[in-house]
Amino acid sequence: MENSNTQILLASRPTGVPQKANWLIKKSDLPTIEDGEVLLKIKYISIDPAMRGWINDTRSYIPPVQIGEVMRAGTIGEIIASNNDKFQIGDTVTGWNGVQTHAVSDGKGLYKVDGRVAPLPTFLGTLGMPGMTGYFGLLTIGQPKEGETLLVSGAAGAVGSVVGQIAKIKGCRVVGIAGGEQKCAYIKDELGFDGAIDYKNESVKDGIKRECPKGIDIYFDNVGGEILDTALTRINMKARIVICGAISQYNNNVVKGPSNYLSLLVNRARMEGMVVMDYAKDYGTAVMQMAQWMGEGKLKSKEFIVDGIETFPDTLLRLFSGDKMGKLIIKV
Amino acid sequence: MENSNTQILLASRPTGVPQKANWLIKKSDLPTIEDGEVLLKIKYISIDPAMRGWINDTRSYIPPVQIGEVMRAGTIGEIIASNNDKFQIGDTVTGWNGVQTHAVSDGKGLYKVDGRVAPLPTFLGTLGMPGMTGYFGLLTIGQPKEGETLLVSGAAGAVGSVVGQIAKIKGCRVVGIAGGEQKCAYIKDELGFDGAIDYKNESVKDGIKRECPKGIDIYFDNVGGEILDTALTRINMKARIVICGAISQYNNNVVKGPSNYLSLLVNRARMEGMVVMDYAKDYGTAVMQMAQWMGEGKLKSKEFIVDGIETFPDTLLRLFSGDKMGKLIIKV
Repeated sequence: MENSNTQILLASRPTGVPQKANWLIKKSDLPTIEDGEVLLKIKYISIDPAMRGWINDTRSYIPPVQIGEVMRAGTIGEIIASNNDKFQIGDTVTGWNGVQTHAVSDGKGLYKVDGRVAPLPTFLGTLGMPGMTGYFGLLTIGQPKEGETLLVSGAAGAVGSVVGQIAKIKGCRVVGIAGGEQKCAYIKDELGFDGAIDYKNESVKDGIKRECPKGIDIYFDNVGGEILDTALTRINMKARIVICGAISQYNNNVVKGPSNYLSLLVNRARMEGMVVMDYAKDYGTAVMQMAQWMGEGKLKSKEFIVDGIETFPDTLLRLFSGDKMGKLIIKV
Repeated sequence: MENSNTQILLASRPTGVPQKANWLIKKSDLPTIEDGEVLLKIKYISIDPAMRGWINDTRSYIPPVQIGEVMRAGTIGEIIASNNDKFQIGDTVTGWNGVQTHAVSDGKGLYKVDGRVAPLPTFLGTLGMPGMTGYFGLLTIGQPKEGETLLVSGAAGAVGSVVGQIAKIKGCRVVGIAGGEQKCAYIKDELGFDGAIDYKNESVKDGIKRECPKGIDIYFDNVGGEILDTALTRINMKARIVICGAISQYNNNVVKGPSNYLSLLVNRARMEGMVVMDYAKDYGTAVMQMAQWMGEGKLKSKEFIVDGIETFPDTLLRLFSGDKMGKLIIKV
């Protein structure tokens, strides 16, 4: 299939959970490149919660993917043809090259990655967008201080696992909320979290009481819904709540707002949203710091890799069911 | 009645809107004072939205008023007997002396007020707790910058009117949400707001589009509910939402959370709660600044004064119906 391109296009906008019918698999000839362009063979495709927002036709931080367009995605690929002096055949690059096997790029937004620093999929996870999200969201909005308690939801996920591990490095008591025994064991035993709350098998309220006896100073929210509402009941004075995502709500037509938001008033607390792209100019520094922590064994990375671009419609749903651990990636 | 004390006690905790049966009017002999104490004749009693929270038996920023206790309230009174060197008979003082005609105090938390600076009721409004709330909430959490758009709800009220006028002084475009033509005319014609939205007679969404064509940089929320949710749809990047109160929700068992809170994420915006008491050490500076603005005609104050302490159960309800303009006060 080296001579054909397989692309996943948005066929129609989903209501609720995206269905197979919302996607179109298109096969076509390999594209040709013009002056200044490169041709990429894509090796890994990042599957992210933000994708659900990108296919809604609503005002957001970036324009929605249009019907008939290739689905937006972060990728790792190899240059297989180049009319651009900055890139040579064989270079490995990361960029926003979409859910497809091959992509043409003018080189803007393409960055070389060095596979000697970490395995390539890690550049879509801990050293990629989710890692940057955790790093900047925690450090700039969460502002962890030694001895504080940090609670993070989606704790076994790509963002949550980074948040918790960096908070440990910063001297916090770290508690994660995750679904199922396996994930809870993973964040405690492998990632070194101080406590875990299994939202699928226990009351989150009771879990927070048990694991956060001194209350919550930072709540890093990836899920929204009831868990956010419950966390709000246990925040401390001057707590910071980082609104990073709301995976529990993305397929809902009507989002559940946090009924307990007046806890912000009582506790003089702050709830603040973040979008990782705002920190792009500092990604380089963050990647160096994160790679150093990885080298020192303080920061571990896990990827959940699914084979085959055609699995995209099903693989995407693992984000909502939680049926994966760590960063979800498609291997092309 | 100079020889008897009339007190309003909390008889039972209300569910929903406080009823007459939740209060007990108690008459008793005038109290006597011990060494170090003073006896106050109370002249004005501040009626505040926060009162609704104080009579719930829930964890909050101060302990709830207990059943059988005198209802908590800010007051202005005159010293009529003193065994305390710091206070002389005839001094006018403000403090937390409760809904009663006379109070005994050991002097802690009593502050002398100077009736030459402003009429006494103003020390319960613009120069009192509501004024301090508006001043510190706007300046420290809202952080207004010249040319920004500020939206404030409860705009004709004691807090909202201060917020809007100070934001004007700071060079903002100021838009207020208020109920009814009279209040909307008041904030525009008397207080100098740039725009008004009459939530009782028009769609708040349409009103915001009309009056905030460049979006909202600061939303100062006194009401919560649907209005907060609507404001969230029109905030700008890096907007600040000051959570000061939620008068629309105080009588509800289940608070409506802001469904559009993910607008915080999209817009990298912040929602932060505040409690005025945190700024107590700076009240003096603020009062001087506010009095200066009043002297210069830049800051106007209006009080809505109801005669008679026995009216308390009914007067309190004016906060929720909106049937008052400016600071609600009982004259004893």
